[in-house]
Amino acid sequence: MTDFFQGIQKIKFEGADSDNDFAFRHYNPDEVVMGKTLKDHLRFAAAYWHSFAWPGGDPFGGQTFERPWFGDTMALAKLKADVAFEMFEILDVPYYCFHDADVRPEGADFAENTKNLREIVDYFEEKQAATGVKLLWGTANLFSNRRFMSGAATNPDPDVFAFSAATVKTCMDATLQLGGENYVLWGGREGYETLLNTDLAKERTHAGRFLQMVVDYKHKIGFKGAILIEPKPQEPMKHQYDYDVSTVYGFLKEFGLEKEVQVNVEQGHAILAGHSFEHELAMARSLGIFGSIDMNRNDYQSGWDTDQFPNNVPEMTLAYYEVLRAGGFTTGGTNFDAKLRRQSLDAEDLILAHVGGMDACAAGLKAAAAMLEDGKLEAARDARYSGWETTAAKAMLDSDLDSIATRVQSEGINPQPSSGRQERLENLVNRYL
Amino acid sequence: MTDFFQGIQKIKFEGADSDNDFAFRHYNPDEVVMGKTLKDHLRFAAAYWHSFAWPGGDPFGGQTFERPWFGDTMALAKLKADVAFEMFEILDVPYYCFHDADVRPEGADFAENTKNLREIVDYFEEKQAATGVKLLWGTANLFSNRRFMSGAATNPDPDVFAFSAATVKTCMDATLQLGGENYVLWGGREGYETLLNTDLAKERTHAGRFLQMVVDYKHKIGFKGAILIEPKPQEPMKHQYDYDVSTVYGFLKEFGLEKEVQVNVEQGHAILAGHSFEHELAMARSLGIFGSIDMNRNDYQSGWDTDQFPNNVPEMTLAYYEVLRAGGFTTGGTNFDAKLRRQSLDAEDLILAHVGGMDACAAGLKAAAAMLEDGKLEAARDARYSGWETTAAKAMLDSDLDSIATRVQSEGINPQPSSGRQERLENLVNRYL
Amino acid sequence: MTDFFQGIQKIKFEGADSDNDFAFRHYNPDEVVMGKTLKDHLRFAAAYWHSFAWPGGDPFGGQTFERPWFGDTMALAKLKADVAFEMFEILDVPYYCFHDADVRPEGADFAENTKNLREIVDYFEEKQAATGVKLLWGTANLFSNRRFMSGAATNPDPDVFAFSAATVKTCMDATLQLGGENYVLWGGREGYETLLNTDLAKERTHAGRFLQMVVDYKHKIGFKGAILIEPKPQEPMKHQYDYDVSTVYGFLKEFGLEKEVQVNVEQGHAILAGHSFEHELAMARSLGIFGSIDMNRNDYQSGWDTDQFPNNVPEMTLAYYEVLRAGGFTTGGTNFDAKLRRQSLDAEDLILAHVGGMDACAAGLKAAAAMLEDGKLEAARDARYSGWETTAAKAMLDSDLDSIATRVQSEGINPQPSSGRQERLENLVNRYL
Amino acid sequence: MTDFFQGIQKIKFEGADSDNDFAFRHYNPDEVVMGKTLKDHLRFAAAYWHSFAWPGGDPFGGQTFERPWFGDTMALAKLKADVAFEMFEILDVPYYCFHDADVRPEGADFAENTKNLREIVDYFEEKQAATGVKLLWGTANLFSNRRFMSGAATNPDPDVFAFSAATVKTCMDATLQLGGENYVLWGGREGYETLLNTDLAKERTHAGRFLQMVVDYKHKIGFKGAILIEPKPQEPMKHQYDYDVSTVYGFLKEFGLEKEVQVNVEQGHAILAGHSFEHELAMARSLGIFGSIDMNRNDYQSGWDTDQFPNNVPEMTLAYYEVLRAGGFTTGGTNFDAKLRRQSLDAEDLILAHVGGMDACAAGLKAAAAMLEDGKLEAARDARYSGWETTAAKAMLDSDLDSIATRVQSEGINPQPSSGRQERLENLVNRYL
Repeated sequence: MTDFFQGIQKIKFEGADSDNDFAFRHYNPDEVVMGKTLKDHLRFAAAYWHSFAWPGGDPFGGQTFERPWFGDTMALAKLKADVAFEMFEILDVPYYCFHDADVRPEGADFAENTKNLREIVDYFEEKQAATGVKLLWGTANLFSNRRFMSGAATNPDPDVFAFSAATVKTCMDATLQLGGENYVLWGGREGYETLLNTDLAKERTHAGRFLQMVVDYKHKIGFKGAILIEPKPQEPMKHQYDYDVSTVYGFLKEFGLEKEVQVNVEQGHAILAGHSFEHELAMARSLGIFGSIDMNRNDYQSGWDTDQFPNNVPEMTLAYYEVLRAGGFTTGGTNFDAKLRRQSLDAEDLILAHVGGMDACAAGLKAAAAMLEDGKLEAARDARYSGWETTAAKAMLDSDLDSIATRVQSEGINPQPSSGRQERLENLVNRYL
Repeated sequence: MTDFFQGIQKIKFEGADSDNDFAFRHYNPDEVVMGKTLKDHLRFAAAYWHSFAWPGGDPFGGQTFERPWFGDTMALAKLKADVAFEMFEILDVPYYCFHDADVRPEGADFAENTKNLREIVDYFEEKQAATGVKLLWGTANLFSNRRFMSGAATNPDPDVFAFSAATVKTCMDATLQLGGENYVLWGGREGYETLLNTDLAKERTHAGRFLQMVVDYKHKIGFKGAILIEPKPQEPMKHQYDYDVSTVYGFLKEFGLEKEVQVNVEQGHAILAGHSFEHELAMARSLGIFGSIDMNRNDYQSGWDTDQFPNNVPEMTLAYYEVLRAGGFTTGGTNFDAKLRRQSLDAEDLILAHVGGMDACAAGLKAAAAMLEDGKLEAARDARYSGWETTAAKAMLDSDLDSIATRVQSEGINPQPSSGRQERLENLVNRYL
Repeated sequence: MTDFFQGIQKIKFEGADSDNDFAFRHYNPDEVVMGKTLKDHLRFAAAYWHSFAWPGGDPFGGQTFERPWFGDTMALAKLKADVAFEMFEILDVPYYCFHDADVRPEGADFAENTKNLREIVDYFEEKQAATGVKLLWGTANLFSNRRFMSGAATNPDPDVFAFSAATVKTCMDATLQLGGENYVLWGGREGYETLLNTDLAKERTHAGRFLQMVVDYKHKIGFKGAILIEPKPQEPMKHQYDYDVSTVYGFLKEFGLEKEVQVNVEQGHAILAGHSFEHELAMARSLGIFGSIDMNRNDYQSGWDTDQFPNNVPEMTLAYYEVLRAGGFTTGGTNFDAKLRRQSLDAEDLILAHVGGMDACAAGLKAAAAMLEDGKLEAARDARYSGWETTAAKAMLDSDLDSIATRVQSEGINPQPSSGRQERLENLVNRYL
Repeated sequence: MTDFFQGIQKIKFEGADSDNDFAFRHYNPDEVVMGKTLKDHLRFAAAYWHSFAWPGGDPFGGQTFERPWFGDTMALAKLKADVAFEMFEILDVPYYCFHDADVRPEGADFAENTKNLREIVDYFEEKQAATGVKLLWGTANLFSNRRFMSGAATNPDPDVFAFSAATVKTCMDATLQLGGENYVLWGGREGYETLLNTDLAKERTHAGRFLQMVVDYKHKIGFKGAILIEPKPQEPMKHQYDYDVSTVYGFLKEFGLEKEVQVNVEQGHAILAGHSFEHELAMARSLGIFGSIDMNRNDYQSGWDTDQFPNNVPEMTLAYYEVLRAGGFTTGGTNFDAKLRRQSLDAEDLILAHVGGMDACAAGLKAAAAMLEDGKLEAARDARYSGWETTAAKAMLDSDLDSIATRVQSEGINPQPSSGRQERLENLVNRYL
């Protein structure tokens, strides 16, 4: 045991009336809702990067966190892993997620990166076995090192494409070795800073080909998990190709991958793209590409990715409602892609931030489940569209403009609007909170 | 002749040094650039709705314009047409565009709407013949009447779908009769106000089927023009399904229409969707669905569709550069989807707004053409990607992750970044302005 | 009794478990919190304009509501008043608010407007006496009529200044007659569409002088209520002079009015100005100009004033927390400056929207009160600043740079940061919800 | 001479037709406009931080620039200074600006910081004498070091206030020693991340007192330059107290400093605050607090501070038009608070970015001067307000609501609107470009 979280015990469920900061009020992992435990519904994961690799910098200031594992040696990487798994156990999160660059020392070249990754992955394998914590997904960091400044798969330099492809291969191998349930691609540098120096068509073609190779490799190595794209509209780049769920869908269709790849939807990225979180989830569901979520929140008054821990239960309820309507998670889960505010310096802040986030997720999911089981909202929705259940309406969809026009003229069809009842439905939702 | 534009003569080209407010300084319709006249390059169209149907209201105030043709009789509709064609001739715009609701009195039902539309279309036919002005595109207004408040093709009520389909049929007929070169669909109410009462999957399916019917009808009646979708992210609805070019592309792919339908890209809609105008044009070009443009500008500090006349030549240069890279317009053109500020009350304001806009477009197109002909920008772009022209790079695209990884390891590939030269290229662009 | 709300009974408090749509779950007007009833804490008011004067239009469509009182006669104005007061009684709101233009037929000139206003105010006086409903505030609509298109007090035409001044006089007279507790000025057209035609300094000077006249007139007629400015950054204009609370404060200071005028803070306007609602309230409190609130919500993904009924209790809790920290309302109250969605056509929608909003306010206020009474949050805040309570810290504020620098050097002051504990405090807030 | 800019000659004016990338096309320092040379009008300054201290990082990636002077020793600080002054001479910029932290190695404490600053300031003094380059302004970096994470003057810890005050003293001393013409305060951490842990009133009071001390110290040491506040709405903090020009004005009024302190207005900060650059300049002018400008541009589609080199001449024309209307710069100037894109790796990029920016400024200023000298725009503006020149209008401003209302009634004043002519004026502006 390290002494980083000294004095902090494993977090227990104590119920809504507890006044213990270090307890769950809403998240009882064993509570059964809609036939599944909360643990199995929510499938919580902690993110290695924000919690263990991020030093607390922002564009106007540097490191604020002082962590004993900061540095670039294998010994420190293992210390970091020790602390990380301690946190996973304190929180009782069943999963974690990582980028290669979060977990291994940065090497001088691909060979050294690979060697370092393998060593730490072996170490993770032991820790997983010892703790029972599992890998929700792995991914490659193809955006921080300066070699990726102009893109990874979309770089003008084919050697960067090669380096990226090779790196993804090693990260997929690592994910397979660790029993990861998904593999994620976030294309943070797959986009442009200026159109003036960008060959948009070429870059998108390379991105599509890259993704095809990833899918092929998945099948080759027998990886059973899902391949997930994480949309984001911009930041760090002015424009990123995986702008939002709808854009990713078009991209997948173009390259014939819509059956092979799903999306990992993040609240903050949805907001930056001009959408609500529930919109992106509903869209993914309706397009058949819903995979997993990155849970966090974006400040509504800030124009960048704030990656805060979530805390607004009414909003989260609407998000989990879409997750439940999609049938719940299969390989996916709830990954906290959330970081402490840079002023939250203490070890206990890291624990409390997760406790609050997990509690808010649990409260949201339970309200969503109650709403879905109660059925009033779905009944109202179905009633609104009930006209489409008639034979005439169905036949119309199989006909053509001409015959419809004839019918409108001959029958004098002159539709009168009826209330959309938005406020009534909003009130209804508030009953479950 | 009406007396609305009394005293205003046909606008002539007088060159950059003219101090006549009522003259073109940059738009010489006969000037030849890249082998085509400016008239043929720009294919200007005036929009009936903003210039002749909009009363000057905003959400906090009503009508400011006092136009002699305001009212809802056929006689007033013809007076409006007389004035409109007088403006087209004063400006010498070769094209115009309209919605059905802009040009005909509103009827009590479909039959009356159709009758009214036919009467005014016959009148237009005469006026086109008399003036030589042509129709760039027609469209149906499926958003203003309260029957469309919950959508047209995506309405929960199948009777509204029917009414909309019948209306589009009549508008396509009208467009065919008038020799229109395109037919446009802007789905201003195809979206939602709240997800709570919305069946997203059903609505999108209905929208897709509707569009298929439109394409079928086009072929049935032998309409040779293009079918164009105009993307807009929101407003009036919270979310609209044709969010941006990429979203429309995914939608077209889903319904097998990407070879049949193109996009009509509007500057203001691009801005509202979080994109630059040139981005949306470049994206449309790279996806093979570029069709036409709605030229205007959106105030960068306002979060709604301001539809102002364009005036920033450097920005317009970048937009026309993408148009020229796409091969220029075929059936498409430059439609001024722009309205006077509601304080610009006078007849001459209507003329001057178009004169300024046309001049700015001409200046932008000429700068874009010079930039393209000079070739320096394209040479810089090509040089940046020249690594992809090697045999090895091309072979890599046909290979797989495994073999790439082996090569990166064995050859010790360790790419070094090179400058993206953005500022240099921005300086270069400024030379052509 | 009219038959508009036929079948809808007076709304009663039934408690959180009620499944009656037409009941309060959280708003028990007689419940005592922090020594005051909820009725006295919240001081609810309904807004005449949105609920009774707005036809349901938006920039892309016209009227959707069909109300029997729509029209421009005195008889219809009285019918409208009858229905309005019926709604006030059904909801048991103690207050209402209006603009002159909401309540009287529009006259041809000032004289007719005044005559009409007087007639309807007399009618209101009777209805107030009969029902016990009171006027929270009155105001003049100086933005809808085309005469105000370029501003009211800031119009380039002094006759519009005069017309506006005269109109405000009549509205202040009306407010006095009706026992109104505040008089509000929202400068929706006090700003500009383009700087090119605007004399910013002159317009601000005129606005300042206008406000001084209003304050003078208040004292002259013995009006005991507060004069309130309602900040909004833009819309309908590109820029409005009363941008936000801080801007209004500077304006009041410039014209010596900071002791005479307070602010009426609106959630939606705060959002449009780039602030949270609680920020604007905290700022008003800290500047000593907090007056009243316009309660609504703005869609976070829409860039215009959506004026929706509020429903997010956690957010409202933070707002009422600032209200309570400011000592609660004195003359001010909670006015629902909120409108139905234009698809919410039915009479019952109007009732339900208010019921939901009132319940959410009550829930928010109760959570805020519990949080304030519990004291944990304030204790944490005080502890964070406790260093400033030392004699040395206080002395430093009375000293100068030189002596401070000497002390830093001599004492080797080298401050170490301590955690800001944001997540811990966010968790704490969630306990009260 | 260092070899960093090897091969790059001093930039010369060659005129608009030059095709030399390393030449000015519009900036001829000796050209006389409105009685002053362009050099004296524009008073260009280069910013030390972006050009020499920033490593090219963003929130998702680290250093991209490889500069021989990166590191934290005095020898490297002097090498950095050598290169910086070489750039100033290559560009022939008359001024530069710096923060203490840009120019000296970071010390372990205040004493070491002070010692390091003095040593490098002595070195700068020599270099200024040798080159003739002058200091436009100095400032203290009170935001990057972790000790400032919760604010400087507004920190909950009075020791941080002390450290900040002491640091500002040393930076004012340095500015005085180097003959700086202004001293700037940008309160990047003076604001909050969350209201929950913030005492807004106390923090603003401390900020006000701090600024009073700065003004007192200025007078004490006989510094003749201006004290400038640089507004920014947010980033790095969620909210910053110096939100925009109007907010700063209210703050200055509150603390009695409106005659002592002016504003340094930045384009990018204006945009982030929801304003155009010209708005903030016009507002500063109309409030009598215009001081200086930070010239750059913010990407209109990005929600953070992009600090790009400016290149849109029409926009810059409107900005310089306000500068000229304010009488031009006195102590202020045009500081390029602009950074290379992080992909612009080469030494020549640094030169070309400034060349392009300087040329765009010169083109903008010349167009603005022509527009102002021509007088058409001002004549149109004056005409619009000419009604206010009458005796009756002036008398009205000295009267009261009552007598105005009487006059409106008796004279039947019924104002009719006249056109605001926005498009005509926009066309007019385009003639000067």
